[in-house]
Amino acid sequence: MNYKMMGRFIGLIVMVEAVFMIPAGIIGLCYGEYTAMWSFWAAMATCLVVASILLLVCKGAPSAFYAKEGLVCVGLSWIVLSLLGCLPFWFSREIPSYIDAFFETVSGFTTTGASIVPEVEKLSHAILYWRSFSHWLGGMGVLVFLLAFTGGQGKGFTMHLLRAESPGPNVGKLVPKMRTTATILYVLYIALTVANFLFLVFGKMPVFEAVCTAFGTAGTGGFGVKNDSIGSYSPYLQNVTTVFMILFGVNFSCYYLLLLRQFKSVLKDEELRLYFGIILIAIALIVLDIRDLYGTLEETVRHAAFQVGSIITTTGFATVDFDLWPSFSKTILLCLMVVGACAGSTGGGLKVARLLLIFKNLRRNIRQMLNPKKVQVIRNNDTAVDEKVLTNVNAYLAAYFVIIFVIFLIISLDGFSIGTNFSAVLCTFNNIGPGFEAVGPTCNFAAYSALSKFVLSLGMLAGRLEIFPILVLLSRSTWKR
Amino acid sequence: MNYKMMGRFIGLIVMVEAVFMIPAGIIGLCYGEYTAMWSFWAAMATCLVVASILLLVCKGAPSAFYAKEGLVCVGLSWIVLSLLGCLPFWFSREIPSYIDAFFETVSGFTTTGASIVPEVEKLSHAILYWRSFSHWLGGMGVLVFLLAFTGGQGKGFTMHLLRAESPGPNVGKLVPKMRTTATILYVLYIALTVANFLFLVFGKMPVFEAVCTAFGTAGTGGFGVKNDSIGSYSPYLQNVTTVFMILFGVNFSCYYLLLLRQFKSVLKDEELRLYFGIILIAIALIVLDIRDLYGTLEETVRHAAFQVGSIITTTGFATVDFDLWPSFSKTILLCLMVVGACAGSTGGGLKVARLLLIFKNLRRNIRQMLNPKKVQVIRNNDTAVDEKVLTNVNAYLAAYFVIIFVIFLIISLDGFSIGTNFSAVLCTFNNIGPGFEAVGPTCNFAAYSALSKFVLSLGMLAGRLEIFPILVLLSRSTWKR
Repeated sequence: MNYKMMGRFIGLIVMVEAVFMIPAGIIGLCYGEYTAMWSFWAAMATCLVVASILLLVCKGAPSAFYAKEGLVCVGLSWIVLSLLGCLPFWFSREIPSYIDAFFETVSGFTTTGASIVPEVEKLSHAILYWRSFSHWLGGMGVLVFLLAFTGGQGKGFTMHLLRAESPGPNVGKLVPKMRTTATILYVLYIALTVANFLFLVFGKMPVFEAVCTAFGTAGTGGFGVKNDSIGSYSPYLQNVTTVFMILFGVNFSCYYLLLLRQFKSVLKDEELRLYFGIILIAIALIVLDIRDLYGTLEETVRHAAFQVGSIITTTGFATVDFDLWPSFSKTILLCLMVVGACAGSTGGGLKVARLLLIFKNLRRNIRQMLNPKKVQVIRNNDTAVDEKVLTNVNAYLAAYFVIIFVIFLIISLDGFSIGTNFSAVLCTFNNIGPGFEAVGPTCNFAAYSALSKFVLSLGMLAGRLEIFPILVLLSRSTWKR
Repeated sequence: MNYKMMGRFIGLIVMVEAVFMIPAGIIGLCYGEYTAMWSFWAAMATCLVVASILLLVCKGAPSAFYAKEGLVCVGLSWIVLSLLGCLPFWFSREIPSYIDAFFETVSGFTTTGASIVPEVEKLSHAILYWRSFSHWLGGMGVLVFLLAFTGGQGKGFTMHLLRAESPGPNVGKLVPKMRTTATILYVLYIALTVANFLFLVFGKMPVFEAVCTAFGTAGTGGFGVKNDSIGSYSPYLQNVTTVFMILFGVNFSCYYLLLLRQFKSVLKDEELRLYFGIILIAIALIVLDIRDLYGTLEETVRHAAFQVGSIITTTGFATVDFDLWPSFSKTILLCLMVVGACAGSTGGGLKVARLLLIFKNLRRNIRQMLNPKKVQVIRNNDTAVDEKVLTNVNAYLAAYFVIIFVIFLIISLDGFSIGTNFSAVLCTFNNIGPGFEAVGPTCNFAAYSALSKFVLSLGMLAGRLEIFPILVLLSRSTWKR
């Protein structure tokens, strides 16, 4: 393994993180929040020192990246980003414990939105901004950003890193050049975020809140600026958020195809159709189930649609305490937590594309049992799917459930109920945020022990990075010479 | 599809079932339980009528079995066996509702042991015997029995049926001839059951109770004859049951190897080592966790070992209400529910052998990510594992979790808590029996709706028959011409 090269790379990432903290520092200044402001400048200084040391020590490293370094680098840089990104919370004492601050930051970058803060309205503006901005940055990916706007580091870099940081069973290149792909993705992302912001401001949401809410929606994160998430905003603002959450859960390559006016291939996209199909069916079932809970049909549909959109895209905003809903609706939401959004979106979970392949593979298996001699090929959008992709999907599924059970076992040491623990695992590992029972929308993760918070943080990172970049860090063969 | 041949086959199976009811009828007579006795004779008559019609209508069918017919036959015959096997419960009004009687019978044959009877001590001896005997029969398999003692029906029969009814990722033939394999398995099974019975009688358990308990242990079923399961028996009887439960969870081919004096290959068997490893670690962790609950270390170890043995072998007996244990111990048990016993045993669950392959596959995937160019073969007991077996294990895992989520969603309509429903699904689908919360060891499944009972019954059958024989019944391509 080429440690020098990895060191240089992580140094660069940390440098970028310091730059990203500048706006938060300025916001602290504008609102006269001097403690918060100074913690940002101190955190920035720390980042710069760490980055300089890394860049100096690792000067003159070769730039050829291999698969191994690519995977390890992605995993490590997200951990380092979180270790340093939580410093403002900790320095400002707005989150007095370092492990809590780390949990909150990982939850931000991984677009989970699970919080340990009991009352977010007490936090300063600078801190609130940084929390929400971490969603936005983590949503599309920090390394993708680096690739789009600095051109990355050598040839092997782009392929391996983009593949490791982008969600989905197979990463589609929009254009032959990886850097151009990354740039297109970020331009689309920025444009959609701005549109979301304008729609919110148009509905009379204060500008600062609109910025934070747009960041949280775009990254499918879920950190809000109000104690009751989106609950106290007007129906218009809630509906705008529903629509944009669902839009950010769509594969971004669809938007690119729309720009190219290839409407037919977008309409025919199997993943997209299944995604909207699941959303509509889930909303319909929940509306039927909760029909007696709210005054009007409009309100019922609005809350059902908001919660479904929030959970399937793994955002985690809430307009009501869905933990009080009947069991059937809660179970639908729990299943949606596992499904997740489309591949190539900012959402988490298993991804609709993967689910599609799992079902097609299962169908093939049954057919092959019935007719053992017939060779059958799996097709997706009329193209034959490579068997290697199917093998990877299967390995992913196995890893997915193994990790769920391991985390579930470890956090059970804290003594919470099975329902609480199970939903805590599902909603952190799938990057959603709030779950049920003691981690429901009106509660938070503060009560878990430091060990559980650490393990859940690792789970969030594994969920966001699609498992393997974190799993290789724990594998012996990675560190063998 | 050859319907005539399938009809004849099912007719034969039903005939065998009628014969198996004779002892229960005699027991009813001996204990003077005339209502129960007459219900058995009536059920036998029904079976004979059904069997005669099937055999007459399907006379002269060809005897060549293909994969499709094999799978469908296994699924269908287990359903028919349960539909008719529940008649004595229903006729005698000891279980007044037909769907309840069906649930109880499926639970018996699939060796689950989940019950809807609130007080088993009120049941008649004949009925108690039939409940426990269904465990014993289902444990090794009705079709395997048919194969062993009647020679089966033509050439294709043996392979496909044995494969469909025997648990595990790949069915090991002990000897080249399938019928001899089946006979060896049943002889071993009978011998071990008799040994278990003698040990129980030696510990002063009444003969009738010892017969039922031995049946429940051998089939890893879990129906008891006392309201508190095994709780009121002496420590000696509890320990005997622990040991035999664990013995019946071992792959029966190990016993055959022991008879052949191949001690080395048994000691080296990877699945067996992992199985005992998991058991020992689980007992140790639970002992640490519940150390303050019981008076002495002996009692603590005894209860921990009993519950671990009962759950990992998917038996479901209990000596204490483990739902009152701390969260960590309960979560360990919940994970053991998924693990299950060894392949080729009478236990359920995913099976240790499958888990082993899943982990090895995962490790290979990580290694291949790190070194994409190196080809890696997975070995089990020093033999290379066929890639087809791995593909099947992966498909099995996918089907396993898909089914869990589907059942989980459907039974949530009844409004029980997430923890109750989740453990209800796990402990029926994995053929364990009691779960946690409202389906804990002191509770039962009576409160679920008829729909839930039906779906959970299908789940038990799918779990016992390793999913695909039930799944093909629901697949359109099975019934297409």
